[in-house]
Amino acid sequence: MRWNGWGDPGRATSLPGEVNALLRDLLGVRPPAAPPAALADLSLPPSRLPGPALAALEDIVGAAHVRTDAESRVRHTGGRSTPDLLRLRAGEVAAAPDAGVLPDNHEEVLAVLRACAAHGLAVVPFGGGTSVVGGLSPEAGTAPVIALDLRRMDRLLSVDPLSRTAVLEPGVRGPRAEELLAAHGFTLGHFPQSFEWATLGGFAAARSSGQASAGFGRFEEMVMALRLAAPAGTLTLGTAPRSAAGPDLRQLVLGSEGAFGVITSLTLRLRPRPEIRVHDAWRLPGFAAGQDALRRLAQDGPLPTVLRLSDESETLVGLADPSALGTGEGEDGCLVIAGYEGTASDVDHRRHAAGTVLRQAGGQPLDEAVGEGWERGRYAAPYLRDALLDAGAFVETLETAGFWSALPGLYEGVRTALTRTLTAAGSPPLVLCHISHVYPAGASLYFTVAAAQGPGDGGGHWTAAKHAANDAILAAGGTISHHHGVGTDHRDWYAREIGPLGAGVLRAVKDHLDPAGILNPGVLLPPPAP
Amino acid sequence: MRWNGWGDPGRATSLPGEVNALLRDLLGVRPPAAPPAALADLSLPPSRLPGPALAALEDIVGAAHVRTDAESRVRHTGGRSTPDLLRLRAGEVAAAPDAGVLPDNHEEVLAVLRACAAHGLAVVPFGGGTSVVGGLSPEAGTAPVIALDLRRMDRLLSVDPLSRTAVLEPGVRGPRAEELLAAHGFTLGHFPQSFEWATLGGFAAARSSGQASAGFGRFEEMVMALRLAAPAGTLTLGTAPRSAAGPDLRQLVLGSEGAFGVITSLTLRLRPRPEIRVHDAWRLPGFAAGQDALRRLAQDGPLPTVLRLSDESETLVGLADPSALGTGEGEDGCLVIAGYEGTASDVDHRRHAAGTVLRQAGGQPLDEAVGEGWERGRYAAPYLRDALLDAGAFVETLETAGFWSALPGLYEGVRTALTRTLTAAGSPPLVLCHISHVYPAGASLYFTVAAAQGPGDGGGHWTAAKHAANDAILAAGGTISHHHGVGTDHRDWYAREIGPLGAGVLRAVKDHLDPAGILNPGVLLPPPAP
Repeated sequence: MRWNGWGDPGRATSLPGEVNALLRDLLGVRPPAAPPAALADLSLPPSRLPGPALAALEDIVGAAHVRTDAESRVRHTGGRSTPDLLRLRAGEVAAAPDAGVLPDNHEEVLAVLRACAAHGLAVVPFGGGTSVVGGLSPEAGTAPVIALDLRRMDRLLSVDPLSRTAVLEPGVRGPRAEELLAAHGFTLGHFPQSFEWATLGGFAAARSSGQASAGFGRFEEMVMALRLAAPAGTLTLGTAPRSAAGPDLRQLVLGSEGAFGVITSLTLRLRPRPEIRVHDAWRLPGFAAGQDALRRLAQDGPLPTVLRLSDESETLVGLADPSALGTGEGEDGCLVIAGYEGTASDVDHRRHAAGTVLRQAGGQPLDEAVGEGWERGRYAAPYLRDALLDAGAFVETLETAGFWSALPGLYEGVRTALTRTLTAAGSPPLVLCHISHVYPAGASLYFTVAAAQGPGDGGGHWTAAKHAANDAILAAGGTISHHHGVGTDHRDWYAREIGPLGAGVLRAVKDHLDPAGILNPGVLLPPPAP
Repeated sequence: MRWNGWGDPGRATSLPGEVNALLRDLLGVRPPAAPPAALADLSLPPSRLPGPALAALEDIVGAAHVRTDAESRVRHTGGRSTPDLLRLRAGEVAAAPDAGVLPDNHEEVLAVLRACAAHGLAVVPFGGGTSVVGGLSPEAGTAPVIALDLRRMDRLLSVDPLSRTAVLEPGVRGPRAEELLAAHGFTLGHFPQSFEWATLGGFAAARSSGQASAGFGRFEEMVMALRLAAPAGTLTLGTAPRSAAGPDLRQLVLGSEGAFGVITSLTLRLRPRPEIRVHDAWRLPGFAAGQDALRRLAQDGPLPTVLRLSDESETLVGLADPSALGTGEGEDGCLVIAGYEGTASDVDHRRHAAGTVLRQAGGQPLDEAVGEGWERGRYAAPYLRDALLDAGAFVETLETAGFWSALPGLYEGVRTALTRTLTAAGSPPLVLCHISHVYPAGASLYFTVAAAQGPGDGGGHWTAAKHAANDAILAAGGTISHHHGVGTDHRDWYAREIGPLGAGVLRAVKDHLDPAGILNPGVLLPPPAP
């Protein structure tokens, strides 16, 4: 992972000249005054890890697995939101943890948590490092901070082919999980945009939802059982796919974002590897007609495996296929991507029936190259963001979900909030939107915002726009996050969404599992008053 | 509801003479020494409700809605487990609550809870009164107890046809919910055996699963949003079908069995009323072959709406159709009921494809009268139980669920535990079993036990058998309940299933929502040490 950007440095992309011209003319984007800081030039505050704490940690995981060198610390700093990256590009690394600690197994995680509680260290559980909501940016006050990096816990522990489940460790990254399971003929079917870098533990801790959620479900629906290492001990949950034995405590751990404990194993539901995978593209006459068609598919079926609808702006810009950006190949109307995975007969049946619904809604099938382009580019947008940041543009995304009847209000409310706030700040934005996850009762909305970089955009005028969007989401009855999570960025709006009693319940749970409050302080919940 | 039995007294049934003979010869059943106690003859301890508490409650809900008369109190005593009914038949009503209180709305529920906390009254939330796990039998110690009866809160508050959701109050009974929603063209599709008497609030509080769960899902999957009145205040949850905004607190309320608060409204997912409903019956060569077929349907589809498989014993006895019991029409092999609801084309497609899978597994279709008989008798078993109790038999059910690979061990473990314990106690039982709920990763097992009534079977030797079955469930890796819930009966095994840290988390949540511990003390969790 690039230390101040996305993914594999060898796959970095650059913008075609037309796009640079478009950014300048449309959004007033100007090249940044200075190039990004270099890793070697960073000025990192010294590690605050006290000697006895360091010795205790080395004793548990081995000296080789406690990393206090500058590069390790920088590589555990923050996540991959645009403000995170802009801060790193500006050389702001004051928030670097004091060490990275790499445990090998559940018992070591437990022991590390006990040692941290004893020595007063804050702990940031660290998977792929891909949070875009400040989930890796705790407010630890004056306590030293360790990043608890789970990369060594990347094993497939067992497979139950009859039940179609497998037990995996939390540090397994998306492609590795697919590779391990493919050897047994299975797939997980979880393909979020962060797939190539994010980990299973992160998917679980943040309630991830993949691009193929219509077919494979959300990540929390795949979790049949789990183990959590908390400062207070071990929680082992899940003895059946479904149960009426009390509240579903699995659903309390899923989404807890490292604030309750560290997920150390996951029993996941598997599917057979599909015989066929195909992605069709359609042009729908407009966003409203497109929503009607998606709703009809979600409510009456049959559902494609992937189902996405871009609004008119996103369709015009051609964002669905980053490689086509700025080439003038953007389309009129609204682009629908409908993907199908499964056996040949199942794909054939669903593709035909869903196609009928899309045609009835005024849809026209597009050339198969469009669907193939989407599939090829499905993990590419974060690379494109790096190139846009290089060019001086600010690009960020945010998402929500609501019931179908609330979606038009959510869509207008968020667009208006973003446009007004950024325009008032002197950076009129382009706001694009798509629906990428559908349910019988509602759907998600995913917004992409592009504008000129403002001064200090790591915490600059984007903050005001983001807060206005958050307010608009709650005002329109949506949830503050459909699949990015809460982190620190959404925390205050999350508290409003669940109300003071809901926040109090979470605090009670946290206090029980993490009495000293060492885990991800300020993530999910406000840090306790000092 | 019969005060000491099931349902509508006008629909009480009696046993054919052959069955009486069978019970005598096979199980040693003898007619009870004495007839059941009469309601008029019961000796009820006087209501312990102090005057000021009574006045406060009357002030909130109106004097007409605080019931301290003997019949009201008896009708709020316990649930509908066989031990519950045997205690009532024996005239044991010492556990009767001191009053029934009938609030009209959320604010009244909140006020009643505040008054009960202030006056030191324990509160049993009371829906249809159909718990079979001691969910209405709190251990209130010396505190007076009120039954908080939600029958007046039985309104449909709103319908959102676009999102296919509706907001309903907790006291709506199953048939009434279907009637209210049918006026809008919708169905809930939730048809547990208790359907005719249980309420929506009870379905939610106990994580109910209906006979059509394969098609419509479990009740907790239908709950999009909810409101909870707790002694500490109001919890309003659910702004989207799915969210990544933290843990899913809805799933903490669902299954909380009245121990955390009182559910005062539910936003439920709806489906269009089916055009067609048909139930096919098949004979599979054996329970193992049948499980393979059900697993294949659950994992690869297409799923029927209803899918059930009786083991050889249950098939032979013919329990799937109570009206045919003892007529010698029981079948060899294992009975499968496969029901389909939906549009004509959808039913046709699934019925054909599922039929192919069942045939491949060695299945033979049975006469359509068998499927029709199942449908006609789907809510009749509790009436049959009353007749069996009259005859001196003991009949009870229990259920569990597990992953597919664990099912054979669960099946053998529970059968062996029940048979050994009851045989050792001098009442060799008949143990029947069926699978009624399937998931890709596993399924439920539902056991019916019939034996001669032992001495004091309200708390007699059945208790030992039930405990042995509970131990066997945990030993074989199953969950202590698939759809009956925890109540008081499963509480200690539930604590083992989730472990001390899990139980501690629930206690922390309860202490936050119900600081005085007035709600259903001893249900779900042990009462706190005095």
